Amino acid sequence: KPSQKETLAQSDQVIELHANIDDQSGEQLGFVLENLIEVGVYDAYFTPVFMKKNRPAYQLTVIFKPAMLDQVCELVLQQTSSFGVRWHQLQRQLMQRSFTKVMTKFGELSLKIGQKGQFKKVAVEYDEAARIARKNGLSVAEVMQQALQVYDKKSMR
Amino acid sequence: KPSQKETLAQSDQVIELHANIDDQSGEQLGFVLENLIEVGVYDAYFTPVFMKKNRPAYQLTVIFKPAMLDQVCELVLQQTSSFGVRWHQLQRQLMQRSFTKVMTKFGELSLKIGQKGQFKKVAVEYDEAARIARKNGLSVAEVMQQALQVYDKKSMR
Amino acid sequence: KPSQKETLAQSDQVIELHANIDDQSGEQLGFVLENLIEVGVYDAYFTPVFMKKNRPAYQLTVIFKPAMLDQVCELVLQQTSSFGVRWHQLQRQLMQRSFTKVMTKFGELSLKIGQKGQFKKVAVEYDEAARIARKNGLSVAEVMQQALQVYDKKSMR
Amino acid sequence: KPSQKETLAQSDQVIELHANIDDQSGEQLGFVLENLIEVGVYDAYFTPVFMKKNRPAYQLTVIFKPAMLDQVCELVLQQTSSFGVRWHQLQRQLMQRSFTKVMTKFGELSLKIGQKGQFKKVAVEYDEAARIARKNGLSVAEVMQQALQVYDKKSMR
Amino acid sequence: KPSQKETLAQSDQVIELHANIDDQSGEQLGFVLENLIEVGVYDAYFTPVFMKKNRPAYQLTVIFKPAMLDQVCELVLQQTSSFGVRWHQLQRQLMQRSFTKVMTKFGELSLKIGQKGQFKKVAVEYDEAARIARKNGLSVAEVMQQALQVYDKKSMR
Amino acid sequence: KPSQKETLAQSDQVIELHANIDDQSGEQLGFVLENLIEVGVYDAYFTPVFMKKNRPAYQLTVIFKPAMLDQVCELVLQQTSSFGVRWHQLQRQLMQRSFTKVMTKFGELSLKIGQKGQFKKVAVEYDEAARIARKNGLSVAEVMQQALQVYDKKSMR
Ligand code: NI
Ligand code: NI
Ligand code: NI
Ligand code: NI
Ligand code: NI
Ligand code: NI
Ligand code: NI
Ligand code: NI
Ligand code: NI
Ligand code: NI
Ligand code: NI
Ligand code: NI
Repeated sequence: KPSQKETLAQSDQVIELHANIDDQSGEQLGFVLENLIEVGVYDAYFTPVFMKKNRPAYQLTVIFKPAMLDQVCELVLQQTSSFGVRWHQLQRQLMQRSFTKVMTKFGELSLKIGQKGQFKKVAVEYDEAARIARKNGLSVAEVMQQALQVYDKKSMR
Repeated sequence: KPSQKETLAQSDQVIELHANIDDQSGEQLGFVLENLIEVGVYDAYFTPVFMKKNRPAYQLTVIFKPAMLDQVCELVLQQTSSFGVRWHQLQRQLMQRSFTKVMTKFGELSLKIGQKGQFKKVAVEYDEAARIARKNGLSVAEVMQQALQVYDKKSMR
Repeated sequence: KPSQKETLAQSDQVIELHANIDDQSGEQLGFVLENLIEVGVYDAYFTPVFMKKNRPAYQLTVIFKPAMLDQVCELVLQQTSSFGVRWHQLQRQLMQRSFTKVMTKFGELSLKIGQKGQFKKVAVEYDEAARIARKNGLSVAEVMQQALQVYDKKSMR
Repeated sequence: KPSQKETLAQSDQVIELHANIDDQSGEQLGFVLENLIEVGVYDAYFTPVFMKKNRPAYQLTVIFKPAMLDQVCELVLQQTSSFGVRWHQLQRQLMQRSFTKVMTKFGELSLKIGQKGQFKKVAVEYDEAARIARKNGLSVAEVMQQALQVYDKKSMR
Repeated sequence: KPSQKETLAQSDQVIELHANIDDQSGEQLGFVLENLIEVGVYDAYFTPVFMKKNRPAYQLTVIFKPAMLDQVCELVLQQTSSFGVRWHQLQRQLMQRSFTKVMTKFGELSLKIGQKGQFKKVAVEYDEAARIARKNGLSVAEVMQQALQVYDKKSMR
Repeated sequence: KPSQKETLAQSDQVIELHANIDDQSGEQLGFVLENLIEVGVYDAYFTPVFMKKNRPAYQLTVIFKPAMLDQVCELVLQQTSSFGVRWHQLQRQLMQRSFTKVMTKFGELSLKIGQKGQFKKVAVEYDEAARIARKNGLSVAEVMQQALQVYDKKSMR
């Protein structure tokens, strides 16, 4: 049975910050996304939206912990063409998460396990699966599928 | 003039719950949508978003009454690949709604009528219009158009 | 019964030209769209697409008659950031179209009528409906609905 | 080892038909999609596009075998608000497909197997997995995962 | 050095109002967008969303100052097919903005300058750039580029 | 004046290959995109589409030179969940392109110059601009703007 460092279900608050961007290219927005991920926000993404004057545009959303508010505001105002940002606070609930490793025929892979009451969910760590897939000329799907099978045999679930 | 069971304009609060999903297929997400509608949420839908690592993904949004919070959290965490959900509360205003029926040459159809001050709005019940359209080899547009005309003649609006 | 200048169903060929744009803003792309419509293409629109390097981008599509190929190529290469365009030819089928006018309580409105065998379709001219809606403080839906009813009474369909 | 009715890789031609729709509601378009699927097209879907006059619109795409051209043209012109359709022919390549069944602890499930040279791909039949998931209060992902594991054990791949 | 009317960074509150629209055409929604912009909301846009019953739909978002709440509710309920709206309040931060003009070889152009601490951002007024581009047969990009260069030479930044 | 290796305008043919994907996650699709770019296709991208059974899905498009057809078919069939691909050939026109370098206060940057008749277009090489922006804590927009100004001074355009 895999060793598991169980963590309690978390309930906390996150900030969702938005900015609408219609005067910057996708090329530059890809750069902004990378910078936001690097400073440690939980998530950042673009939603295509239809604006006035026939403009295809994007709504940037950034999700992060309240302590990062000033840093994220500054980064978004500095890196994007937007002259303003708006935000609100949301309640968040996370599953109990734990981490484990499995050894497949392609090599070792990390798994994230989520638990809520009776229900259990397992996700294979993408970056490792991608590296192994690339090295072995496989699809990510095949590698992930392998890891899940080894896990299931081990945990007899 | 059609019989009408007038209802007062409502102002209440709804919860909007979000989860970002980048590791589950559209096929499985269609299943999640059906399950959410079945348990009685007001609405549920997916928004295409652009995430890190070149990932096309979806933001799931579920709108429901505050009393359903635990049930919806559980369903989303059990049915999707997401390890967390976030939500916030919004104020909602609904038009005064009433319901009536009209008899068209294709059969009886239900109408929903919304009123706000002087302004009135009429919508034809989709499921009935679709059934009639299918039976008669018509488009839904034709059937709805018929129902609206019969209503307008009756109400002399 | 409305006077109608019947035209025959057309079958012809159109060119669909595409360019992918990831280094130009939505603001500038709205301008390009207007210019394309002005020179007389059949249609022009943007599709949001997910490109490499985390880039949200747009695919521009322009549909026009083959004789305009050089003009459209030039306009797209001059007005957008793209260094190339690609195109292919498609077969097109149009319904038999005729035009008529109806007098509603809000004023006169133009209708486009399409016919294919037994089937008939009527569309209210948007620009006129929008002008009348704006002048009378109505929604476009209300004005269009009125025009369709007057037409239906006239044509006894 | 599962019984398999091997079929040869197919190379054939399909027609892709398009129509841009800016004057019909999503409610009605859902109806059109169902009707297209019912008459047996290979696929039908909507792409959100940004059109002139600030219009959010949809491009309908229908993919089908050349013999259905007249039928599909008629259905699209009758059921949508569009006055014209355009189409072109594409070359298509399909993997060698075979079908098999596996018995899981939740019941029997059908699998589709694709082969191209050395490479093999397995997909669980969605409708069956959805029915079983619904009956057992599971996610579709869990049911599919089970079926794939049983298959892998059998085929020793 | 350009004359500049500096304004202080603003922090205030805005309302974000949403309505999901699945039974109205894009043609009519373009009209709604124009009306909302005309009454003075900060922004209004449509997001394509995937709803139940195979419906492609739109989420309308309107952003405006709290004092406009009643007016915007009424306009949305009157102009769209929606029977209800929902909204929440967000915190907003704007950069310090000032305005200036530059004289290019194509004519005078207005610039908006944003400042936050050390960081400065300059945007060319779109409507003026578009008018000049149209008159001179240029792309908006070329005109904006010219204006930014003249500004940079002046401000020696 | 910058040294320029002028190249003639090209007119050639490209293949556009499509596959619809509704049973694979965005996480895995990001991997596919990277692999396609690595083998040297001209472009690859995902378009969000609305499919039957309430499925949010993606249309994969890959653009490449005709000689790569077998390689791309194989890669797409091996890396995605799709059991088939379809493609067609398009005519392509490229601007005359040349390359040059400019020295800015932040370092050297490469430019791509496109020419078609009288019209000239300049693009700053993104990867270099991004590296410089990251090193200097700037936005990509600022770095690109600098490079364009240096180029314009040199070429007196
Ligand atoms: Ni939000
Ligand atoms: Ni929300
Ligand atoms: Ni993930
Ligand atoms: Ni909120
Ligand atoms: Ni095309
Ligand atoms: Ni096509
Ligand atoms: Ni129209
Ligand atoms: Ni909101
Ligand atoms: Ni509805
Ligand atoms: Ni194509
Ligand atoms: Ni499938
Ligand atoms: Ni073609």
